[in-house]
Amino acid sequence: MNVIEIPDGSPFGRDNLPYGVFSAAGGQPRVGVRLGDTVVDLALLLGDPVFAAPSLNPFLAQGPARWAQVRERIRAAAGGPVPDEARHPVRDVRLHLPFEVADYVDFYASEHHASNLGRLFRPDAAPLLPNWKHLPVGYHGRAGTVVVSGTGIVRPCGQFKAPDEAAPRFGPSRRLDIEAELGFVVGVGSPLGGRIGVDGFAEHVFGAVLVNDWSARDLQAWEYVPLGPHLGKSFATSISPWVVPLAALRAARVPLPGQDPEPLPYLRGGEDWGLDVDLVVTWNGQEVARPRYRDMYWSPAQMLAHLTVNGASARTGDLFASGTVSGPEKHRRGAFIELTWGGREPVTVRGEERTFLLDGDEVTISATAPGPDGTRIGFGEVTGTIQPAVGG
Amino acid sequence: MNVIEIPDGSPFGRDNLPYGVFSAAGGQPRVGVRLGDTVVDLALLLGDPVFAAPSLNPFLAQGPARWAQVRERIRAAAGGPVPDEARHPVRDVRLHLPFEVADYVDFYASEHHASNLGRLFRPDAAPLLPNWKHLPVGYHGRAGTVVVSGTGIVRPCGQFKAPDEAAPRFGPSRRLDIEAELGFVVGVGSPLGGRIGVDGFAEHVFGAVLVNDWSARDLQAWEYVPLGPHLGKSFATSISPWVVPLAALRAARVPLPGQDPEPLPYLRGGEDWGLDVDLVVTWNGQEVARPRYRDMYWSPAQMLAHLTVNGASARTGDLFASGTVSGPEKHRRGAFIELTWGGREPVTVRGEERTFLLDGDEVTISATAPGPDGTRIGFGEVTGTIQPAVGG
Repeated sequence: MNVIEIPDGSPFGRDNLPYGVFSAAGGQPRVGVRLGDTVVDLALLLGDPVFAAPSLNPFLAQGPARWAQVRERIRAAAGGPVPDEARHPVRDVRLHLPFEVADYVDFYASEHHASNLGRLFRPDAAPLLPNWKHLPVGYHGRAGTVVVSGTGIVRPCGQFKAPDEAAPRFGPSRRLDIEAELGFVVGVGSPLGGRIGVDGFAEHVFGAVLVNDWSARDLQAWEYVPLGPHLGKSFATSISPWVVPLAALRAARVPLPGQDPEPLPYLRGGEDWGLDVDLVVTWNGQEVARPRYRDMYWSPAQMLAHLTVNGASARTGDLFASGTVSGPEKHRRGAFIELTWGGREPVTVRGEERTFLLDGDEVTISATAPGPDGTRIGFGEVTGTIQPAVGG
Repeated sequence: MNVIEIPDGSPFGRDNLPYGVFSAAGGQPRVGVRLGDTVVDLALLLGDPVFAAPSLNPFLAQGPARWAQVRERIRAAAGGPVPDEARHPVRDVRLHLPFEVADYVDFYASEHHASNLGRLFRPDAAPLLPNWKHLPVGYHGRAGTVVVSGTGIVRPCGQFKAPDEAAPRFGPSRRLDIEAELGFVVGVGSPLGGRIGVDGFAEHVFGAVLVNDWSARDLQAWEYVPLGPHLGKSFATSISPWVVPLAALRAARVPLPGQDPEPLPYLRGGEDWGLDVDLVVTWNGQEVARPRYRDMYWSPAQMLAHLTVNGASARTGDLFASGTVSGPEKHRRGAFIELTWGGREPVTVRGEERTFLLDGDEVTISATAPGPDGTRIGFGEVTGTIQPAVGG
């Protein structure tokens, strides 16, 4: 029974307290909170069986008053001696998908990303489509293929067709890409026919994760008209194992860069939910981009308000992601299709000229945000390694 | 304890045996099978606790050998006297969503529907996009708003913009529509990185339901580029309470109308899964269309093969729907936007000229298919009534 040591400058200090689901050798998955390099077993620490579950969902459903109360109880309990059986070095545990994903919606909320993709996919048209500044454009992705960081990413096969080819071909994707995003996790849902206003964000959303929305650009380019991306995205979406609660992001909240034209009233007002989160993308260990979430055009509160304004219900475990986080400068771009301008401007990765992902490549996205008193709040990382296609 | 009487010509005879989830007065939801106008409580009839669940999912996950075995046991047990406590008149029970929907994908598999929508949404371009005859185009819908027949449909609000308007407006949809479809329910999933071939359909899919994919055409037209439909569809999708097992559709299987060009090998071959299902659409009780599923271009086996060819996993409870069933003649069109040609050619409903749905309108889609020996297999119906918008 000892006090948990938190290394100086750890991004997992007492002001972060991200939640995840872990299993220790031979044990069943259960909920833990990360403090420094230690995973604390919450069912044991707090004596609360809601944390003996293999997912965060039962706790998420309990709502913001309980989230605040539990956060205070963890701070109090973890400030003193913690029983040995309730603590595990993070390197000794396996981390699982932290929550059961209900519906997964991916937005497209970076003006820089949407403009860049518009230029690349539709070179003869205006880069931003007419609706883009009026609503946070988004679409439903495949909830069943949201996987936890570290899951191998099998190169997807599918159809693609070059503009000068008469018919599509089938095979492994040749333009496998990443999208560095933040995702937001719904705790408290809303009924069918109801709405969550822009002011309701913190009453419904528990916290945030890092997202890598793996994208096969060749499959996507051929399939996406008129119903949007499908197989180019549905093979896998990776998320970080730690859900950072909104309560840890108070010091990270900033105004949006500005919206012109002013959006319709249902998207207007509300509190500031721009977030000063700095992402870092590494490719085989080498840093290739530093996207900043504060550059995003639409806030996550606006995304949720839009998502439900038609009366669609929200559920515990709904995940909605921001879309690629890209900024105005080249090194702020969160997707390789932008960073290499459609593959025409390779980047140098460990001495090699590279465009899209090769088998064996590893991509890791990490992030931090300001905490209180000059500290940093860590999101940890979301990582994945490309495995060869099967049965191309 | 009596033998269950099945009225002559009932579409719920001994060769159908569709599964649903019901509750009788004061009771918990549990699995039943429909025979004539009687719902038989399967946990009581067969003494198997898998049917005491409030959803079909545990049974669906057991796979085709068990599905066949249970079908034989039901036929045997329901052929003799059935205890009174295991039988309920269908009019006395409440019918629930029959399964928990995992992911919901909606295809666009009717050539006539896709061509008609192309002409209406993109009048200056070729009606079919270049990819359409090479792959079954589809997209993910919102699983959390799939509701059972009879659920009220609140008119959705959202953004829309007429071509001659400078900016979008917000309000209740003025072009609320239906889409008459068949949906297919996955019983046995597939692992991430794996595939279900065109020959694997009956090993993975348990059965079919009727689907009404309610659509707000004005919201959809403004939002759908470039990521596809979202709020125009996500407010509600209704399904019939009875899941007709594939085993009941043997006599309904027919070849597809024909595919030219021949699709890529992963979509080729497999058994015939065209389906001779006749749909009837009524609007306030008046028949307005009779779509035929046998006119569909892509088969559900091809849809599932496409869905998973990129390594996307499938899960128990996945629902994939066909998209609107429309045929070449006007009275075969399964959506009002086609039937009224974008609202320009009203239809007469109970003496009134009508285009899109008004508050209070009721739409019911029913369907039957050939069974053995000249009998008919019924899908029952999916119905919904439009309720006024809230907070427009």
